[in-house]
Amino acid sequence: MTTAKPEHPVTPRTKDEISAITNRLKRVEGQVRGVQKMVEEDRYCIDILVQISAINAALKKVGFSIAERHTKHCVSHAVQSGQGEAAIDELMEVLKQLSK
Amino acid sequence: MTTAKPEHPVTPRTKDEISAITNRLKRVEGQVRGVQKMVEEDRYCIDILVQISAINAALKKVGFSIAERHTKHCVSHAVQSGQGEAAIDELMEVLKQLSK
Amino acid sequence: MTTAKPEHPVTPRTKDEISAITNRLKRVEGQVRGVQKMVEEDRYCIDILVQISAINAALKKVGFSIAERHTKHCVSHAVQSGQGEAAIDELMEVLKQLSK
Amino acid sequence: MTTAKPEHPVTPRTKDEISAITNRLKRVEGQVRGVQKMVEEDRYCIDILVQISAINAALKKVGFSIAERHTKHCVSHAVQSGQGEAAIDELMEVLKQLSK
Repeated sequence: MTTAKPEHPVTPRTKDEISAITNRLKRVEGQVRGVQKMVEEDRYCIDILVQISAINAALKKVGFSIAERHTKHCVSHAVQSGQGEAAIDELMEVLKQLSK
Repeated sequence: MTTAKPEHPVTPRTKDEISAITNRLKRVEGQVRGVQKMVEEDRYCIDILVQISAINAALKKVGFSIAERHTKHCVSHAVQSGQGEAAIDELMEVLKQLSK
Repeated sequence: MTTAKPEHPVTPRTKDEISAITNRLKRVEGQVRGVQKMVEEDRYCIDILVQISAINAALKKVGFSIAERHTKHCVSHAVQSGQGEAAIDELMEVLKQLSK
Repeated sequence: MTTAKPEHPVTPRTKDEISAITNRLKRVEGQVRGVQKMVEEDRYCIDILVQISAINAALKKVGFSIAERHTKHCVSHAVQSGQGEAAIDELMEVLKQLSK
């Protein structure tokens, strides 16, 4: 049995879910632009680093909420259809990356 | 003696230094927009998480290069003028944040 | 329906699994004692920090392997008996801690 | 000019400094042994992971306090004797490892 890499979540995200995530990512995008401006104005290093840490924290939070939904839908679905192993290996791999 | 919070690095960043950092941040901004698009297209969770991890890694790298320059200029300058303690406390505090 | 906090994994660890993990933890314990000795001998800071980083990496690896088995057994079992939500929330919470 | 890798901090740690760090490391060692016992008793995965996260946090804290003292003594001394560059590169390298 082959398992083609999926293109989409097993349960499509609702419009509300999509706009909740994209709103958070737009805020992150704005923060990144804010840091660019700080660098262009040659602002104090520590102030820039505080912003970069905040962006990382925000991104990690988005990442974990996507991972949580993924586990509740895609991974759970895989478990129920007897393909949990591969789905869980894939999840753990990406969480290790995210936790670096 | 009061030490007002500095507005700028003790050695101004050169034009080249500024554009090197802003170029990296523009790439990060592009990556964040890329993730937004992936979410809008309801793409597979793991693929999104791989991208988010990559952005975090890129941001951390920018952060550490800013911290390195900060230590070589601002902190070193503070050390030479007998105000190393406070500068180093400030540096460590922000590096703890960045390392979360 | 109440869900009492479990005392044990849903599938007991085999003797081999237990000794694989405790062996890794004994190595970690040895590394921690090694760092104590380095500090007592007033060894160079950077050498100590390299060892501490190595211990953290080893512990994170053990943590992720425990989390993986947990997901493959306890969480999967919870999913199959319709109690996936709570199990996944609990898993994500602890992975956020581990990733700090 | 050659810079041999140092064996010791530029300012020797006092007895008090040494016992403060080794006490923290002994506590960490005790925690690691505690986790071994939990694994031998086949305790619930999440409870084990919570302990592992706590150990990692404790070790990171020790690491940062060693890094701080290192910067205030060894790195500052290097800066004052015109060898700041190499000392700062070395510091940043190890902090990147610690922050993973």
